[in-house]
Amino acid sequence: MASIITLTTDFGSQDGYVGALKGRLLRLCPEARIVDLSHDIPAQAIRQASWCLARAVPEFPEGSIHVAVVDPGVGSARSALLARTARHWLIGPDNGLFARLLEVEPPQGLWHLHRDSPHWQAHASFDGLHVFAPAAARLALGDAPEALGRPVKDYARLPDPAPTRDGVRLLGEILAFDRFGNAITNIRARQLEGIAGKPVIYAGEAWLPLVHHYAEGEGLDAMALLNSDGLLELAVYCGSAQARLGLAEGMAVAVAGS
Amino acid sequence: MASIITLTTDFGSQDGYVGALKGRLLRLCPEARIVDLSHDIPAQAIRQASWCLARAVPEFPEGSIHVAVVDPGVGSARSALLARTARHWLIGPDNGLFARLLEVEPPQGLWHLHRDSPHWQAHASFDGLHVFAPAAARLALGDAPEALGRPVKDYARLPDPAPTRDGVRLLGEILAFDRFGNAITNIRARQLEGIAGKPVIYAGEAWLPLVHHYAEGEGLDAMALLNSDGLLELAVYCGSAQARLGLAEGMAVAVAGS
Amino acid sequence: MASIITLTTDFGSQDGYVGALKGRLLRLCPEARIVDLSHDIPAQAIRQASWCLARAVPEFPEGSIHVAVVDPGVGSARSALLARTARHWLIGPDNGLFARLLEVEPPQGLWHLHRDSPHWQAHASFDGLHVFAPAAARLALGDAPEALGRPVKDYARLPDPAPTRDGVRLLGEILAFDRFGNAITNIRARQLEGIAGKPVIYAGEAWLPLVHHYAEGEGLDAMALLNSDGLLELAVYCGSAQARLGLAEGMAVAVAGS
Repeated sequence: MASIITLTTDFGSQDGYVGALKGRLLRLCPEARIVDLSHDIPAQAIRQASWCLARAVPEFPEGSIHVAVVDPGVGSARSALLARTARHWLIGPDNGLFARLLEVEPPQGLWHLHRDSPHWQAHASFDGLHVFAPAAARLALGDAPEALGRPVKDYARLPDPAPTRDGVRLLGEILAFDRFGNAITNIRARQLEGIAGKPVIYAGEAWLPLVHHYAEGEGLDAMALLNSDGLLELAVYCGSAQARLGLAEGMAVAVAGS
Repeated sequence: MASIITLTTDFGSQDGYVGALKGRLLRLCPEARIVDLSHDIPAQAIRQASWCLARAVPEFPEGSIHVAVVDPGVGSARSALLARTARHWLIGPDNGLFARLLEVEPPQGLWHLHRDSPHWQAHASFDGLHVFAPAAARLALGDAPEALGRPVKDYARLPDPAPTRDGVRLLGEILAFDRFGNAITNIRARQLEGIAGKPVIYAGEAWLPLVHHYAEGEGLDAMALLNSDGLLELAVYCGSAQARLGLAEGMAVAVAGS
Repeated sequence: MASIITLTTDFGSQDGYVGALKGRLLRLCPEARIVDLSHDIPAQAIRQASWCLARAVPEFPEGSIHVAVVDPGVGSARSALLARTARHWLIGPDNGLFARLLEVEPPQGLWHLHRDSPHWQAHASFDGLHVFAPAAARLALGDAPEALGRPVKDYARLPDPAPTRDGVRLLGEILAFDRFGNAITNIRARQLEGIAGKPVIYAGEAWLPLVHHYAEGEGLDAMALLNSDGLLELAVYCGSAQARLGLAEGMAVAVAGS
């Protein structure tokens, strides 16, 4: 099969930059199968992109190449990362974008891409086209990572606060929201096991019951549940928990027994 | 040719769920040709999705597989539908999502998907990945529908009000809006044939002339026309009929002769 | 390789029209490789679409077919254009949509598509499906352009104001905004060469320094830089220049030496 190359950006599509990326990839590697993950990452939202990648990439077939460009530092001195996991190739700015994914699929090789291209100075604002796409195409055509960059020992992380325990309570926080206004927290399913009795969740000045699925929340003001990532999520049936409970990123979430 | 599998969801793309769906499909069925219909269906807007599917699916080649996930009842007891029409396969929640399409292409077989997967309990919030995508992949790989579910006799419908006649007038209503704020009604082209003289349309406290195409509306406050689905549509040239006329879903639309 | 057919529209995806286009193309030409450029062009924003196409199309492999539909005049008498450049085929309304691209890749042949289809009268509101997609499919299948339309000598342009000089100052204007609120002007890199000393840019009642890349703007209110199209762009680090400086399309931008 031809190589799969996925794209994750905060470009939107209406400005033509995504189209240019796709065209360049198909010109350099006509056999590539390009798959859009997202071009609607909020502008410069590295954390949101890191979630998107951590959810999507592990599902892809072995040997897929994943290009991600969410990059407030474009044109600056930040490095361009190439990473190999047991199953995938990752290419993008070394700014934490791949940090969540690399927790799930640890790196087996890390490189900083060479920047010897004459395009580099001339096209300072579009690394996706001039640095990342050519590297993805060369990988897809069979080049070794050693030909594309120099080995490095580590990659940039994101701040990742762990929940704490306060006596019998578990204290976490809201990390992000999804499209529906569901709030995703840093509390993992197994951390709830230490709670005595049925867990109840406090967030946004409300107590939420823990339910098994969204439809159980019909008639409830709001609910908490374990989502498909194994994380505690705050939700409103057919509505937005973010709006109804006035939630924001970083806000505290407590879990107690009842 | 490899199987075409189309995707229609209300997931947006920025959370990674669409990417996960695509990855899972390509992993289970590497030859699949995945085609995005839409991931921008408004959250839980089953009716909107049913229109999207009814417009798009009939255009696809015979044998295409269409996965749709707009599902306020995810994780609840609602069934997972597999339907075969004369030309297509449909997979998604049995909640009315396919009802409009199945009016156009009547079902020749209906099944409720088996839920014996061990994933089912563990991943209550993501049927797209754990139920629908695997079923689509198995169909694409040649499995018979009988291996995937048990035959059923019917599928869920949507409320679908028909226009009525009040003397010489035809009374319908607004069913939905498109991206441009055009209002789509439940009045069909052939129902206008009973109107004596040139039809005029009353909606949102305004009388609209019936024109042949959008450009005729230049200089008009608003207009009505028969759209490419054969339905009466209310529109504003280079603007939004929804905004200008203060229209809403379910609002009355009358047609009279002049 | 199978033909690449790209799509650029202002349809959004949620109404099913984009899906219908893709289905029709795959039905008429099963081998086609469909690539989404954008379906999020703002409604009827011909100029925005012309930028999107001018950035993206030149990157694609030789022989690609590019269908674009942003068309306030759909159904009116405006013609349907088929253009051949040295490297690409272009299909869409002849309303200026391709004007920017055709500056970069001059036309080597121009045709107005025949409108003999019986569908044409019946489906007045959806030229994409009934006129442009079939033409693209026939080209992809090897038909000659002469079989699809009659040769014409020219194509529609867009108003395109050139910067002027006022003594030592260069006076331009804002042409468009990108997704991030960066303002794109009509001032080209080489036009800055006539400026004595280090250029400073006046726009929206503020003086902006000229920097080399976005990251240099950290800590600055706003900045100007030469973007990857070689045009002067006004930007805010991790923010929107449009919002912060109160910019609008057509607003004046002056460049002076310092």
